[in-house]
Formats: sequence, C-alpha cells, structure tokens
Amino acid sequence: MKKRSKLDIGWLRIGAVVLFASGLASSKASATDDIVRDGEYNFLAAQHGDVWAEQDKSIDAKLAEYREQNGGKPPNILYILIDDVSFGQMGNRAMNYVTGIDTQHVNKLAQEGMSLMRMYTEPSCTPTRTAFLTGRHPVRAGVEEVKVALVGEGLASEEVTLPEVLKQAGYNTSHVGKWHQGDIEQSYPHNQGFDWAAFPVHQQVQLSLMTREAMQANNMLGFHPSGQSNEFHIDQRFRPYGLVTGLEGEAGGTAKEIDLQPGEEWTQAHYERMNERYQAQVLEQLENLSQKDDPFFLQYWPLYPLNFAYPEQAISRNGGFHADKLQLLDTWIGELLAKVDELGLREDTVVMLMADNGLMYHYEGTSGLSQLIYRGGKTQHLEGGVRTDAFIRWPGVIEAGSAAGDIVHVSDMFTTFARIANATDYIPRDRVIDGVDQTALLLEGEGNSRRDYVYVYEGPVLRSIVKQEFKMHMPAPGVPGAAAPVFNILRDPREENPQIGNALWSGASFQDMAKRHALTIEKHPHLPLGKGKPYEGIENLRPESIETREVFDSWH
Amino acid sequence: MKKRSKLDIGWLRIGAVVLFASGLASSKASATDDIVRDGEYNFLAAQHGDVWAEQDKSIDAKLAEYREQNGGKPPNILYILIDDVSFGQMGNRAMNYVTGIDTQHVNKLAQEGMSLMRMYTEPSCTPTRTAFLTGRHPVRAGVEEVKVALVGEGLASEEVTLPEVLKQAGYNTSHVGKWHQGDIEQSYPHNQGFDWAAFPVHQQVQLSLMTREAMQANNMLGFHPSGQSNEFHIDQRFRPYGLVTGLEGEAGGTAKEIDLQPGEEWTQAHYERMNERYQAQVLEQLENLSQKDDPFFLQYWPLYPLNFAYPEQAISRNGGFHADKLQLLDTWIGELLAKVDELGLREDTVVMLMADNGLMYHYEGTSGLSQLIYRGGKTQHLEGGVRTDAFIRWPGVIEAGSAAGDIVHVSDMFTTFARIANATDYIPRDRVIDGVDQTALLLEGEGNSRRDYVYVYEGPVLRSIVKQEFKMHMPAPGVPGAAAPVFNILRDPREENPQIGNALWSGASFQDMAKRHALTIEKHPHLPLGKGKPYEGIENLRPESIETREVFDSWH
Repeated sequence: MKKRSKLDIGWLRIGAVVLFASGLASSKASATDDIVRDGEYNFLAAQHGDVWAEQDKSIDAKLAEYREQNGGKPPNILYILIDDVSFGQMGNRAMNYVTGIDTQHVNKLAQEGMSLMRMYTEPSCTPTRTAFLTGRHPVRAGVEEVKVALVGEGLASEEVTLPEVLKQAGYNTSHVGKWHQGDIEQSYPHNQGFDWAAFPVHQQVQLSLMTREAMQANNMLGFHPSGQSNEFHIDQRFRPYGLVTGLEGEAGGTAKEIDLQPGEEWTQAHYERMNERYQAQVLEQLENLSQKDDPFFLQYWPLYPLNFAYPEQAISRNGGFHADKLQLLDTWIGELLAKVDELGLREDTVVMLMADNGLMYHYEGTSGLSQLIYRGGKTQHLEGGVRTDAFIRWPGVIEAGSAAGDIVHVSDMFTTFARIANATDYIPRDRVIDGVDQTALLLEGEGNSRRDYVYVYEGPVLRSIVKQEFKMHMPAPGVPGAAAPVFNILRDPREENPQIGNALWSGASFQDMAKRHALTIEKHPHLPLGKGKPYEGIENLRPESIETREVFDSWH
Repeated sequence: MKKRSKLDIGWLRIGAVVLFASGLASSKASATDDIVRDGEYNFLAAQHGDVWAEQDKSIDAKLAEYREQNGGKPPNILYILIDDVSFGQMGNRAMNYVTGIDTQHVNKLAQEGMSLMRMYTEPSCTPTRTAFLTGRHPVRAGVEEVKVALVGEGLASEEVTLPEVLKQAGYNTSHVGKWHQGDIEQSYPHNQGFDWAAFPVHQQVQLSLMTREAMQANNMLGFHPSGQSNEFHIDQRFRPYGLVTGLEGEAGGTAKEIDLQPGEEWTQAHYERMNERYQAQVLEQLENLSQKDDPFFLQYWPLYPLNFAYPEQAISRNGGFHADKLQLLDTWIGELLAKVDELGLREDTVVMLMADNGLMYHYEGTSGLSQLIYRGGKTQHLEGGVRTDAFIRWPGVIEAGSAAGDIVHVSDMFTTFARIANATDYIPRDRVIDGVDQTALLLEGEGNSRRDYVYVYEGPVLRSIVKQEFKMHMPAPGVPGAAAPVFNILRDPREENPQIGNALWSGASFQDMAKRHALTIEKHPHLPLGKGKPYEGIENLRPESIETREVFDSWH
C-alpha cells in the first residue's frame, strides 16, 4: 500500500514551515461548525465568518420551516451523475444546435432549477465519485483512478460516505449504475452506506470497449481474439480476462453477479441490456423508496453515454457513438423525471444532475462529443477536464430558471446535501473535509458561494490551482514559481494565452495558496486506500473470475 | 484594375467544361422568380421547386395580410450589425457566464424572436457588408477587404444595394456607423441608396488602434511617433497619415467631415465620442423616420466592441478591451430597443441583430473575446471566422423564442428583406444573386431554409464548401481532391479531425458542387470593383487629407 503521510502535493516544492505558519496567521475557526477544513477555507472564513454565521441562522430557519411543512422530514435527494460529458453538452438549446444532440429533458430540468455554471469536478470518474461520496479530495483517501483490471483495492471502509451520513439522519439509500470505487468487498456500495445497490464492479472500457462490436466500429484495437491470430502470444493474461460484470447487493449481505453466465462471452448486446436494466431499476427503486415513510437518497449513475459501437439506427443528428447515447439517455432522464411527478414527489425531492468530468477526447471526431468551449478532457486538469454541466432543482426553495457563476466543487455536494438533510452533525470531525457548505448559494442565490478556489489534482499530483477568474498551472519540478503560467479563464477559456509577465502578483498569491494547502496536509495526513483480495463477498463468482483472481493472487 | 472575368475560384483546379454541363443537367428555373442563381441553388430547386412554389403562395398571402393590417405598408426594418464577435458571445446567458460579459439586452432580443443558429457570413468586415448590401458573394463585385489606407476603390455604383431596392418600394433609408465599403465617392452610403448617412470612411484600426492610448495599452506597435525616435526614417508615408475620419452626407449631396479639425490629432477620446455620437444619432434617426408615412430601413453598424485602450473603469467581469465594450454596446442596444417600444414601433418593425464575422483572434487573451466553440476568427474560412450569432424579431409573425438550425448566409438577408418589403421585383435580373429567399424559414420555422450549402471565400479564393453537416477545406493547388479534408462540424466543431479516408463519397460530391459554382461564374463573370480618386465629394477636406491624397495620386 502506498503511504501518503509525507507531503505530496505534486509539482510544487514546499518552502519553509515558517511561511506556512504566517500564511495561516489570520485564520480562525470555521464560521459554522467544528469540521476540519483546508487552510484556504479558513483563510476565507477569517474574512467572512461573521457574515456567514449570521446568514446561517436564517438558512437554518428556512430548512426547519421546510421540514415542518413536510411532516418533519427533510427532502428526498435524487442524484444523477453522467459519465464523461463536457461543459455545454447538456442543458442548453443553443449548444444542442452546435452538437446536433437534443437534450431537451435536461434542458427542461435546467430551466426548472439552478444552473451551476462553474461546477468543478476531479478530472476522472473514480476520483470525482470519491469526492462526492466523501466530501474530500480523493487524494486524502488514497484514491486515484481505478483501472480496468484486478487491483485488489478501492474506497476504504474507514471513509465516511454521504449515504452513511444520511442514513444516520434516517434516510433510505439506493444506488443504481456505475460505481467504479474498487473491486474489494469493503468498497462495494452496499458496504459503503447503501441499503441496496445494482452496479458493475469495473467500468465501461470493460463493458463496451472490450467487445467484438467495438472492434468492428474501429474503436478497439487488439483486444478481441477474432481481430488477429496469436501464434506468438506467450502471456495469456496481458488482456484482461474473467472480470466480474454486474452485481447486486444489500447492506450487510453478499453480492450476486447477474449479467453474465459462466462461459458466456460479453457482447455489446449485454451492455445495452445492462443499461436498460439500470434504467428500469432506477424507476423501480424510485417507486419502492417513495412508499416508505423516511426520506430517500437515490443515486443514479448511468453507464451511457459511454458506448463504442454504432446503433442499428442513430436517433440524433450527430450520430457519434457517445453522442447518440447521450440523446437516448436524455429521454431516459425525461422518463425518470416524469416518474418523479407521477409519484407526487416533485415538491419534496431535490433533483441534481451533473457530469463527472470532461469528454473522452481520445475518440474526438467519431464519438460525437468534442472539446467545445474549454480545452482538454477526461484525465486532464484543464477546464475541459474538470468543468461540467450541473443543474439542481428543488421547487419552491431553489429559484427556478436561476443560474450561479460562483465556483462550486463536486465535494461541496457532500456537505451541502448533509446540511439539507439535517445531517451535518454526522459529518466526521477527525479528518479534512474539502466540501464547502453551499446551501447559502442554493437558497440565497448567485454570489453566495463560500469558496472562490479549487485545487485541481491529476491522481496524486496537484496540477492547477483555481482562484476567482485566475488559474495557475503548477510549475514543473525545479521551475521557479514566477515562471508558472497563469490564465484568466474568462478572457481565455481555453488556457492558451498565459498572462506570464503581467501576472506576477498572482503567481505569488497562488504560491501562498499552495502553502496553505500543504500545511493542512502536513497536519492531517492522507488516509490509506482500502486494500484486500478482489471479488470477495460475491456469492456466485464464475469459474473464469475465480481463475483470474487466482492468477492475481499468485504474485501479489 | 483587377479583372475577374476569367475563372478564379481559388484553390480548386477547374476540370473540363463538359463536366460542368453534366453537373447542371437536371437543373431547372428557380421556383419563384427569374432571378439568376448559383448552380447549387438551381440543383436544389430542381429537387424542391414545386413544393417551394406552393409554399410561396401561402407566404405571399401572409405578407399581404400583414400589409393590409398595417395600413397597406410592409414593416420597418432595423438592422444592427456588430463587428468581429464570434458565435456564442452574445444572446446566451450560459455563454455570458463563460465569458464574463453580460449581454442581457441581446439575450432578451433573442428570446423575443428567432435565433438563427447557423448563420454564415464572409470572414471579414468589408466582404460581409457587401454580401448583405448586394445579396452577392463580394467576389462577384470585385470586393475584397478594404485596407486602412488610401485605396481609390470601393463598392461600384453598378452594384444594386438593398437600400436601393427598398427605396423603389417606398422605403426611407438611413445608415449610422461603420461602413467600410471604400474611399471613393460612388461607394459612400448616401450614394449607395441611403437618404442619409453618418459613417467613418475607413475602419477601427485607424480609429482606435492608431493612437497613443492603444500604444500605452500595449496593443499598437510602432505607429505612434511618441513610441520611438525616428532618426533613420526616410519614408514619411509608411505610416498612414491624414486619413479622413467621420463623414455625414445626404443622397445626392456632398459629405462633410465632422469628427476632426485641421491639424488636430486623433485620440481614443475622439473615438469614444464618435461611438457615443453614432448611438445618439441612431436614436435620433429612429425618431425622425418614425414620424414619416413610409416605412423605413435603418441600419446601425456600431464601431464597438472594437476598441484598443482600457477604460477608466471596466464594467464587465471580463474587462478585456473588446469584451468590456461589448457589454457597453449591449446596454446601448437595450436603449435602442426601448426607443423602438417608446415610439410604438415594436409590432411593425423587423429587428435583426448579428455580427459580421468572428473575433480578432490576434488579440486573444487580452481583448477578452476568445475562440469559444468554433476554431479560428476574422479573415479565416474556419467556422470561427464565418459563424456568428444572429437574431431576428418580428412580433406576431416570427415565433418568439424559436430557433432554427438551418443554414443561412448573410447574403440571404438581401433577398429576404426585399421579399418582406414587397420589393422582390426590384432585385436585379442581370447578375447572379447568391442570397436565397429565407422568408419561409422565418415565417414557417425551422426546417424551411432553401439552402443547405455555403461557399466560403477568403478574399478571391474559395477556401471551403459547406454542405449539410459537412465541410470540405479546398485542396491546395496540385493536391488531388481525394486528399481534401472533410469535417463533420456537429461531431467536430473545431475542424480538427478530418474524416479523410472515410468520407471519399463526400469528396466527390463536393467536387461536383465546386464545378456547379465554377460554371455559374463562367456564364456570369464577376463585375469590376469601383475605382476612382479617393475622398472626392467631401466638402471640407482637411489640408492633411488633401496632402495625403496628392501623394497617393502622384504615383497611381
């Protein structure tokens, strides 16, 4: 296991500790609670804490009033997280014309709630999902991207997840769809706070790319054995083999694989059926949860739009293999939101929809999703990797048709949903929580965010710092801070024209921010990633999965 | 004078004439009239002419009904053309958040009318304005970009302009702002169909960049004498000198320079006063025109957002020297539209607002306007150079809040406004008119465009052909057509991933389109550019302008 107790903030060389101390000299305790915060938040709280504390009183009164009118209960939460879709590709008619993808149901949701115009995520699936689940930068939990292979690691049981927090406040919790938090038992969703979960262990590279159909669509090079003869192959395990596909499980129980039988080959048809099943299951879960007394937290993390084979008949004008599925997914979201209405849940359910990171730019030109406004995509610290569409609806509480240009980070939703659920007390106090409470922004509107900064990591490496309209790309090792490029992302959204030479003041300020962050890490070292034997706690493991696990075990 | 009577369609090598003939074999006369069309339009008319003719009957009835309800008169037309602003930078709240520029008044106009989501222009100011004024690709009139210097050329009096067409149908016509159609008397707006005009002869490089303030803002290199000593200068005329600034004139009369006195130095303050004066004058013109019996055609072509000095205090979050003025201009447009309402003109006035071409990418990063969605800018055939925001409002006739993904070219507005003004009969029949009548699109909505193609020129060179969602960049001389890159601009809006190798069918189809276009040119050769002595017809020419003209004359 990799230990992260030493300072590890990537490219930046950390200066003397005396500087850190002076950087934090003016900070004081958070305005609202005793949650452990990053240095930068404390720096802001020192400037605005009194105002925030005052504002929090009226917000608490509003939330209490809501619960009173709702039979003493906080609202339900339906959280939809879409995979690998860049900012501008959902929720906006004008952009639909640019892309030839009709997202009318998401557009409608956007109009019914607040558009968070500056939502930052982590640059890849696993980290963003960890950040949402834990309210922490994933690096603090030892989490990087989980590969499509046996790894014997994943989200540690020591991490406290949002569903665990919400359960303590009486919520019922269900998860449907992509999970991608590891292949060990402690990481499975039904062991991380969900009463019930249906999920694939791995991700879509396995489920839609490692197929014969993806090869035929010219997307998958060299995986499928029908694509080339193999006289000279020695290593039979270079290509992933025998991976578990879709599981279902209940809290405290074992999981069961349901999408594949022993000896069966996974195909695009399996993938499409899996997607359809998740859509059916989220509707089913919504109905089941709505019949219970307690409020619910329902998570729907679709696998689409990721998809690497062409359909029989495209439904979008774009026709790209991701784009077309994005339009299909939009109709499914329409169906889900119609079900919310049909079950009479509209007024009492906070619905949030966002994407986890930017597009898979590797398939640009044929996937149909392209770098649109911001440069870069998945895996990259550029705005195109970490800026996504995000919409949140809570009728009568969040202003319909509103928008906010404030900075929000995906981890903020952990803290904010906890507050809305009256569960702030259950947020752990023994570790850093990066998620900032954004309830003021949602309830009081634009201009009420409590962060104006984001630290952008690629895996364990701090690659950028965002503050206000500025963004510094961290200097490479050995390069002086004064040479680090700083961008104004309003004037230069594609981060192509660094303001080097006329932004030296901001270079110095960014160095201070890096130091405040580093000092926080020094005081509160990163926790270890969960480790274990892969595929434990699955009751019907296929022989091929057992075999592949034995191979894995044989040299670990 | 450059003659263009020989085939000159740029990079494409023209094949045998027999091919052209076969390309046109199935064409027949236009559906609606005897206007001379480009081959490609005839090719479409051969497929859809009967349907269009039928549709035209009901459109004619609608227009007649409108006139009947409006005291026998067609509507007023207010046409606002903004300089150098790329698609997505006006009219859309989400994009306002990206750029930090608030265009709330344009956004509102967009919501009150139809958004033309695929408006193509020419890639630069002079050609786009010629295309609008004449309904012709500027190359047919010998027009390229007019430089900031004495040229002794401009729009020929033989060209028939929209205001000339509208005047024959009884319209009063006024022009306020940028003109940029040449420095010879026949080219001035009051000699090209406008009853009254206030306009600078040249463009904003002279008016805002060739100043001491622009040098101090680090935008203007080497023009202003205070920026360097000049011991070794021999040529006193390398830097433009003595240029005429702002003129006013009435049809049939001489022009008068009003923004500068003899011996005075032009400064940024002059430029700002000039902009403010045009804004005041367009309000004044609107009021004057509204008091007359006949309908009016009022053209407002602001000089802002082009601007190269920083303001005392920025008003936008962006603060870039173009961006900030775009936000100011938006408030001015709000003022103008409020005046339309105040004068009771709202219901009887078609208001159109669009930009003439993409941003000046040369100043990206500091101007505050950046390549956003499409790649490229002014002077380039890339989508970023020729795709602009365009909105048109006609209450009760054009559906409020509607949008159209159909292709439209700026020249279409010539033909369309003529139709709306009941003036189609005055469109000349002795030359090619590229502008397609888009009244069906405006009145019947999305899907009713009568073009699905655009020929994109840079000056006299045909650089791209757009058809449906495809775009071919013309092959360089000597390069086989099969090697020309073809892009799908829905899947790849930035034209970065050519579909070469899997779009050979479209390469062949694009070659056919080029041939149809070339044959039309062969049948109807380009007309000559207007030529003359610069600055004639100005009654108060300053001594320095007289001097600079004499120098010009001395070697021409």
